[in-house]
Amino acid sequence: METVCVLGAGSTRYGRLDESLVEMIANASADAIDDAGIVPGDIGAAYISNVFGIADKQVHLGPVIMSRLGIPEKPSLSIESACGSGSVSFREAYANVAAGFYDAVLVTGAEKVTHTTTAWTTTYFAYCSDFFYEGSAGASFPGLFASMARAYMTEYGATEEDFARVAVKNHENGLLNPKAHLRKKITVDDVLGSAVVASPLKLYDCCPFSDGASSAIVCNEKFAKEHGGKYVKVIGSGRGGSPSALQDRNHITTIDSTVSASKAAYKAAGITPKDVDFAEVHDCFTIAEVVNSEDLGFAKKGEGIGAAREGRTARNGDIPLNPSGGLKSKGHPIGATGVGQVVETYEQLTGAAGERGIKGAEIGLTHNFGATGASCAVHIFQSV
Amino acid sequence: METVCVLGAGSTRYGRLDESLVEMIANASADAIDDAGIVPGDIGAAYISNVFGIADKQVHLGPVIMSRLGIPEKPSLSIESACGSGSVSFREAYANVAAGFYDAVLVTGAEKVTHTTTAWTTTYFAYCSDFFYEGSAGASFPGLFASMARAYMTEYGATEEDFARVAVKNHENGLLNPKAHLRKKITVDDVLGSAVVASPLKLYDCCPFSDGASSAIVCNEKFAKEHGGKYVKVIGSGRGGSPSALQDRNHITTIDSTVSASKAAYKAAGITPKDVDFAEVHDCFTIAEVVNSEDLGFAKKGEGIGAAREGRTARNGDIPLNPSGGLKSKGHPIGATGVGQVVETYEQLTGAAGERGIKGAEIGLTHNFGATGASCAVHIFQSV
Repeated sequence: METVCVLGAGSTRYGRLDESLVEMIANASADAIDDAGIVPGDIGAAYISNVFGIADKQVHLGPVIMSRLGIPEKPSLSIESACGSGSVSFREAYANVAAGFYDAVLVTGAEKVTHTTTAWTTTYFAYCSDFFYEGSAGASFPGLFASMARAYMTEYGATEEDFARVAVKNHENGLLNPKAHLRKKITVDDVLGSAVVASPLKLYDCCPFSDGASSAIVCNEKFAKEHGGKYVKVIGSGRGGSPSALQDRNHITTIDSTVSASKAAYKAAGITPKDVDFAEVHDCFTIAEVVNSEDLGFAKKGEGIGAAREGRTARNGDIPLNPSGGLKSKGHPIGATGVGQVVETYEQLTGAAGERGIKGAEIGLTHNFGATGASCAVHIFQSV
Repeated sequence: METVCVLGAGSTRYGRLDESLVEMIANASADAIDDAGIVPGDIGAAYISNVFGIADKQVHLGPVIMSRLGIPEKPSLSIESACGSGSVSFREAYANVAAGFYDAVLVTGAEKVTHTTTAWTTTYFAYCSDFFYEGSAGASFPGLFASMARAYMTEYGATEEDFARVAVKNHENGLLNPKAHLRKKITVDDVLGSAVVASPLKLYDCCPFSDGASSAIVCNEKFAKEHGGKYVKVIGSGRGGSPSALQDRNHITTIDSTVSASKAAYKAAGITPKDVDFAEVHDCFTIAEVVNSEDLGFAKKGEGIGAAREGRTARNGDIPLNPSGGLKSKGHPIGATGVGQVVETYEQLTGAAGERGIKGAEIGLTHNFGATGASCAVHIFQSV
């Protein structure tokens, strides 16, 4: 197996963008290619993550993007795993480079949804749940995560204020990220006073619908060294699954796919959660970040909320979560999100994260799941 | 690299089906698992190909299918490359098994569209073209392939009767396939007398919109031997790309992605086109089969139409094309098609194709592309 590296990264701003889906992907891809110090022809293939291309009238994105980049002869494909599409796409790129099928590939993810109505977008998103049991019964994602939050409060004594602190912390981080969607300082009172979406979750407990694209160049170490740019190594990667419907889980405040994906990644990397210097985790709702911190092994079961309360997950805490601002503040352009986590991790580990940089960080982890965690991928990166 | 095999296969009937998308995939998957003589837990992961899950209100199919199969903990993903999704998904499964990431995986593809209106389906399909240049200008697939057909007639002297013979031949084959969508003997006059869709293509030059699902078990040879069932080897696999819009091609009667994908597959297999005993090729329109026969090296440029006219591509010809009936008669459930070609090839090479079996066949090839051939994958199989 080849050692797999990330050699360059690029991203559009996340938010309500005017560009088409294709323009966004082409721009982010070109930025990653430039950042890597390579030319499009150096790429062997492209792995594209996207869920709702149909909303911008372009499915079969691969050849369109390859053509816009001037390399129509290169193979490409689109990968979908709901909100976890980006990290699953990264995983396939990783596997193909590790196996030696390609020296270097482009991983690029994107979503364009803000031009549709919120009702339409919410409906589309509900198709990512187990629609027969959930979406069609009216249980869209805010309701499903609210069930998790209510159960967590009952079992572990968490409060709405505790969840609010997660949002406040991620907005503080996002304020330092020039590409974040919601760059706005908020207070616990702002969160508590925002409109109830699905009790106990209020509007400010929820990540926004965002447009955006993020890209990375994934290659073997020989290629990385030859092309001279800064690179980081992928030292572990894992995938996992959970029952698609929340009702079939053994426990709704544990996401089994996160547990199995992270165990596999830690094993491959030969490290424990204690060795991780920071993590980008899937905080689609504030409750999710708390559950993730436990499932990833950063806190014991029921103690994730305490870690958040005590500031342990802040940028200067012992396990900083979402220095980018996370889905909550940076934004959540579905297909881009998992790749965007890789972009942040690459920037953090190569000293390009500016003011939001985690001092002395050498190992970063990305965690991205689909739906209520029915699918998950975790990747671990190390500076060189 | 591991030797990659196909150990079992299963498929629903293709046509207008009552089952939901999820039911179709679960049924075809369970059939493939049974056929392989394994249990769901033997599978390491699932590769699912689908394009328009949104039409049946279920995206993020992986966890739903894994849950229905009783293995929710197994990782899965969906792959899309327009009409070539199935063969691209097969390629990722192949790569992961070849690299040793999994001993055995499920590849399953499906589409469910016939419950929507034809106008809706045609619109959805047009999103698979380069929509900015093609679909939005009114150039949907029948028109684009009609352009190819007209150019081919002008350059090489083909006639509408010649194209009609391709449809007649594939319907003859499909009549012997109990799972084919259009099991109906037709004549050249039937084709010529059918409604003009986009001149020179008539209704009977076009494949139907179909529902259906097809599945295969892809594994390493050790796994195949240990589980005892009949298996075939994958001896070559290749991918290719072409400019997304037809207008950007050097030549519109040559599909570059087919040429490059097949060259790569032949090279990997160490064979030439002459060694292939039969092929399942992407005949979304009759013109496509003719062009494919040239691009795959079965006939020289401009001579594919002669090969069809002379019966060389019939079941008893020297290079039988589409013994299953092809997309034209067997049907074209988009995400399933490429996997369905693997199912046919597996059945042919293990003596399970019944009346439509190609006598003495040892090497079979599958060819499946997306849109007007902007993406393509070719796989070559050999009996054991």
